[in-house]
Amino acid sequence: MSLHTTGSFTLPGEANCEDLTLRLAKVWGADVIRDSDGTQLSPELLNAGYGIYSTICIIREHNEFARQHPECVQQTFLSTEPKCAEGDTLDIDLLADFFREQFRINEGEAARKYWQVWDRTEGVLIPAERWSYREGVVTVKGTAPYHTYTVSFLAYRMWEEISMYNHVTNSWDKEHLIPIDPRLPAAQEYLYNWLENWCKEHPATTVVRFTSMFYNFVWIWGADERNRTLFTDWGSYDFTVSEKALADFEAECGYALTAEDFINRGDLQVTHMPPTGHKRDYMAFTQRFVVEFGRKLVELVQRYGKKAYVFYDDSWVGVEPYGPHFPEFGFDGIIKCVFSGYEVRLCAGVPAKTHELRLHPYLFPTGLGGAPTFMEGGNPTRDAQQYWVNVRRGLLRAKIDRIGLGGYLHLTEDFPDFVDYIAEVADEFRTLRTLQEDGGPAVLPLKVAVLHCWGALRPWTLSGHFHETYMHDLIHVNEALSGLPVDVEFIDFDAAKNGALDGVDVVINAGRAGTAWSGGEAWADPKLVTALTEWVHGGGVLLGVGEPTALAGSWGNFRMRHVLGIDRDTGARVCHGRWQFDVENVPGLLPEGSGVKGLDNLYLTDGTTRVLASAGGLPTITAHRFGKGCGVYLSSFQFNNANARMLLNLMLWASGKGLEQTWLTDSPAAECAWYPADRKLIVINNTDQPQHVHVNTDGGDAEFDLAPYGSVIESR
Amino acid sequence: MSLHTTGSFTLPGEANCEDLTLRLAKVWGADVIRDSDGTQLSPELLNAGYGIYSTICIIREHNEFARQHPECVQQTFLSTEPKCAEGDTLDIDLLADFFREQFRINEGEAARKYWQVWDRTEGVLIPAERWSYREGVVTVKGTAPYHTYTVSFLAYRMWEEISMYNHVTNSWDKEHLIPIDPRLPAAQEYLYNWLENWCKEHPATTVVRFTSMFYNFVWIWGADERNRTLFTDWGSYDFTVSEKALADFEAECGYALTAEDFINRGDLQVTHMPPTGHKRDYMAFTQRFVVEFGRKLVELVQRYGKKAYVFYDDSWVGVEPYGPHFPEFGFDGIIKCVFSGYEVRLCAGVPAKTHELRLHPYLFPTGLGGAPTFMEGGNPTRDAQQYWVNVRRGLLRAKIDRIGLGGYLHLTEDFPDFVDYIAEVADEFRTLRTLQEDGGPAVLPLKVAVLHCWGALRPWTLSGHFHETYMHDLIHVNEALSGLPVDVEFIDFDAAKNGALDGVDVVINAGRAGTAWSGGEAWADPKLVTALTEWVHGGGVLLGVGEPTALAGSWGNFRMRHVLGIDRDTGARVCHGRWQFDVENVPGLLPEGSGVKGLDNLYLTDGTTRVLASAGGLPTITAHRFGKGCGVYLSSFQFNNANARMLLNLMLWASGKGLEQTWLTDSPAAECAWYPADRKLIVINNTDQPQHVHVNTDGGDAEFDLAPYGSVIESR
Repeated sequence: MSLHTTGSFTLPGEANCEDLTLRLAKVWGADVIRDSDGTQLSPELLNAGYGIYSTICIIREHNEFARQHPECVQQTFLSTEPKCAEGDTLDIDLLADFFREQFRINEGEAARKYWQVWDRTEGVLIPAERWSYREGVVTVKGTAPYHTYTVSFLAYRMWEEISMYNHVTNSWDKEHLIPIDPRLPAAQEYLYNWLENWCKEHPATTVVRFTSMFYNFVWIWGADERNRTLFTDWGSYDFTVSEKALADFEAECGYALTAEDFINRGDLQVTHMPPTGHKRDYMAFTQRFVVEFGRKLVELVQRYGKKAYVFYDDSWVGVEPYGPHFPEFGFDGIIKCVFSGYEVRLCAGVPAKTHELRLHPYLFPTGLGGAPTFMEGGNPTRDAQQYWVNVRRGLLRAKIDRIGLGGYLHLTEDFPDFVDYIAEVADEFRTLRTLQEDGGPAVLPLKVAVLHCWGALRPWTLSGHFHETYMHDLIHVNEALSGLPVDVEFIDFDAAKNGALDGVDVVINAGRAGTAWSGGEAWADPKLVTALTEWVHGGGVLLGVGEPTALAGSWGNFRMRHVLGIDRDTGARVCHGRWQFDVENVPGLLPEGSGVKGLDNLYLTDGTTRVLASAGGLPTITAHRFGKGCGVYLSSFQFNNANARMLLNLMLWASGKGLEQTWLTDSPAAECAWYPADRKLIVINNTDQPQHVHVNTDGGDAEFDLAPYGSVIESR
Repeated sequence: MSLHTTGSFTLPGEANCEDLTLRLAKVWGADVIRDSDGTQLSPELLNAGYGIYSTICIIREHNEFARQHPECVQQTFLSTEPKCAEGDTLDIDLLADFFREQFRINEGEAARKYWQVWDRTEGVLIPAERWSYREGVVTVKGTAPYHTYTVSFLAYRMWEEISMYNHVTNSWDKEHLIPIDPRLPAAQEYLYNWLENWCKEHPATTVVRFTSMFYNFVWIWGADERNRTLFTDWGSYDFTVSEKALADFEAECGYALTAEDFINRGDLQVTHMPPTGHKRDYMAFTQRFVVEFGRKLVELVQRYGKKAYVFYDDSWVGVEPYGPHFPEFGFDGIIKCVFSGYEVRLCAGVPAKTHELRLHPYLFPTGLGGAPTFMEGGNPTRDAQQYWVNVRRGLLRAKIDRIGLGGYLHLTEDFPDFVDYIAEVADEFRTLRTLQEDGGPAVLPLKVAVLHCWGALRPWTLSGHFHETYMHDLIHVNEALSGLPVDVEFIDFDAAKNGALDGVDVVINAGRAGTAWSGGEAWADPKLVTALTEWVHGGGVLLGVGEPTALAGSWGNFRMRHVLGIDRDTGARVCHGRWQFDVENVPGLLPEGSGVKGLDNLYLTDGTTRVLASAGGLPTITAHRFGKGCGVYLSSFQFNNANARMLLNLMLWASGKGLEQTWLTDSPAAECAWYPADRKLIVINNTDQPQHVHVNTDGGDAEFDLAPYGSVIESR
């Protein structure tokens, strides 16, 4: 598509593959070579004239220190599964359900005061006098027969989870890496000195790439191979806890947390659920600590003339790149691994100088869910194409500075197609970046606010990658939005009550009832309902997906049912009649191939609600006029090309702006972006088939022929 | 299948069709002729030597009295739909959403004190000083802009609902019948005298068939033909209310009810939801009144040498045939219209001397949902077969004394097939009844208790007919149970805590979370959980369907998850791992053709849970050993022949009694019943195909050939 260009590309170097590394650095136009987890670059690579990224996961590879300072090992709260008493005494083996290589019970006095024994049948705490602990087992006395009991306790995490995963996946036979908790002063001092020494010993390194700071996302493994992952959450803070953290929290925040704040009746603290006040306080407390010590490490690195980048994955907990303290770190850049468009936007929006994407597939034998990638049966070129077509949509809308790959370079040798394709991608990326240099793309007159519990603190992402969160409608919505020519912001419920709706054209609320995405108890606040009602009445569009604004126990279920004109019965209205309806065809509104999955128990609340699509006799897409504004409802949302355009169309139509806009293609198979400063138009083909498309430009209709996954750039 | 027999058959006579009536009386072996709604029997029929049933709906056909005593017209509470205020005042047209021919606002002072105006956004009552009423419109002052408001008010019901339905369906041009409320002394006196006069004027009548007592099930119609039925519930008490009833309730029960006890945030009081304490009190209060005045009417009829039967449909509210006061009526018989087997059991279990079924189809041009029956496009014989095959299963298990038909006899003239088929049915019924005369059928050693909020007060039925409640798993379970060779009882949660589990082998809890069938808040009681846990541990089988024992906010969702070994995530455990499983094949357990619909978000809570069937990667049928007992789970249940046998098999297998039992067929297509007193075996074919089946008798294997829908009786 253009001349071969170079730069802005980070190549994973590999020891013992120096020739390959240098050859691919040329082919892909790399300007930086990085090491990968468990690899060391050779002097030949370090001295080849490239920038050098060195990956540091600061809290691991210090097993000797950990053995000398067992109190400095990272921890978590665990709870046993409920166990049923048959008599008046009950023995509970604390680690029976857990992967014993990951955990060791913290038996210390200071930790034991945080342990809790619960009668889960009654929902009451058992006083400490009624239970005792010995050799891994809690014995509860005076149990009520046929009640169930649990024990919550602190456990050291004896195996850093990312290396544990790599270790187990690859059947390594290496020492298990123990994660160090820098909250303890001894650990801080040790790590600081270790990093200073490291900086001295690595003069060739130009960028220290932190992976990431100190605390991994939660990943609790089980004893049984049939249920290995008991819990995983990319956004939860469980792995930051310790008796020291709890004591510090109490001193700083003025009240004490308990084990139950973490265990939460076995649910733990799921990012997909609304956070409690305690959880918000604890997150803020942890962020303050992570930035306080983290910025010292960043300053240290910078003092040695290196840049400090942070990897926005793995041990990112407490970093919160959209949180109030992130700028205090002073990071020079942020690196995000991406499969999807929304992750591009997630990275691009972080306040940092340099934004880099690590593309997928990772150079590893297996990929998502253990599927083959760089091995027999794998097709890494196809995988790369599929990820790139999603990522590229985001790159049209937001500026990213660099891309790169990760993993083991030698694995590409059997896949010459892949090498060629990455060369194309690297060129295309560099071209796309150029388009953004004189200003961003034009957007339609449509400002969209996605409304959920996390708001601006956690924009774009739900919790992890698309394939980890695909069951939530909202990630599909976010993915669609990431490539649409509209302004997008993320707001929480407090913001919505306090002016954040001003100037917004469309508010999206999408999720299952009770979740952080729909909002749960947030909808109990009449101020929220009133503010949104007034805003829609004045002309806003509330676009609800799934169970928006749901709060059982109010009038009906959706608190904004008067705006949406539709509701979902939770069982209490099974005897109520249902409005009959005809499906209305609005020309041009729903592209061919668009459509969403149905949801049961939906019913119209108003005879004026217009049904735009239905499935199985129930509405799937509706619109309801309210004052000068409108409620739009979708029973669900699945991301694909047709549905992305459908979402745009629904927003344009419902807000009264109309479907006839400039700088839109005539087909959902292709999208375009217009950069007014340079008067450049790019048209991209989001499909694996050639496409002939029209674009409605400011100078009239223009036609384009696009190769599969191809793009065309035109100056106008 | 047998010689032509006579008796125990009630024929609907028709004026001007005397010859037809008398001919069909012979063909069908009738011993009784009845009138139907809106018909009068001629002297020729009255004097033909048959018993005469006269249908009396005591509370209607008194329009002259109603006009003179407008305060004696029946009422209900209504609420407007929430309306949004745009400024500081709001007009609400009370009847805007309602069918104006059905309702008239009760504007009286005594009624007005029960009206309520609600700010539904805040969930607060508006003080009476802030609103006023004039000519059908409530004006609310000082409204908060963009809050929604409702008005709850008492309305007279100006058109008795069953006649309203018949009137509208048949486009009649008659006077609308107004329902009289006997709670008012003037109405009581009038109705008593009217009935006495009626008895005097109808010497030929042998049985007065009350239809039923005073209060219809709830049926609220809407203004718009696209949403004609706003609410209907066969078991709710809304239509019994009035300012007098509310004042009497307060005097009798010591506290006052409010409009909101009925309106319930627009949900009204749905039988499918757990009743509040106030609702239970109000139901008991109403039952006491209905029996107090009702028994006077029954005594009056009996004093004139007639029997009094009650029709267990239409205006049955307050009669509660399974309630504590029903025997006080002194009814001689009860008549139930039936489509299904469970309705046979519902009728048979009522403490009354004579139990009669009115079979379907009703002799009417249209049937269920307006489908053609006795008109072009209808096939009443096929309809009758399908209902009869369901009803017959129940008749094998429980004794019924009589059957009959209802409607307009002349409609059968174009359907000679139907006439022949009913003659067969009548004969078969009389034969089945004979089988029961010396004692009931043998049952397997399996006592089943269905556990829900209504328990023994409302056994077998949920609320109305199968086609009205098909969306609930429990009605399918009840229908299956109605023909199985097991003892069945219905218990509520209080009973379960107080000894009702003793001697029970299987407890079934089946329903959507939060409903009266699953139990909702009942599961918050640790006593219930403990009692059931102990009972299963000692050997009981808890069989859960759908969302059994569900109560969000406890540990997990199903409160009996430790017994069931499975749970359903409500969203809080979306990040938790899932047990992998293989589907286990237990020989003979799941008959060919059996299987149930899947449910999303299910997960095993224990690695020992056995998955017996799955769909879409999720378990649909599981079993989990617990102590000496077992938890069995089905994601849903749909009644059909194979699933009925599957249910029996699961209960036998899980309770350790084994699948090899005597007096069972080898095919779910056929069922059998063994009457030990007479040593008679009946085998029935539940399909429209011929069947060859084996029965495991106490004398070894026996074989039978059965015609479609046929049956064979053998003495052994």
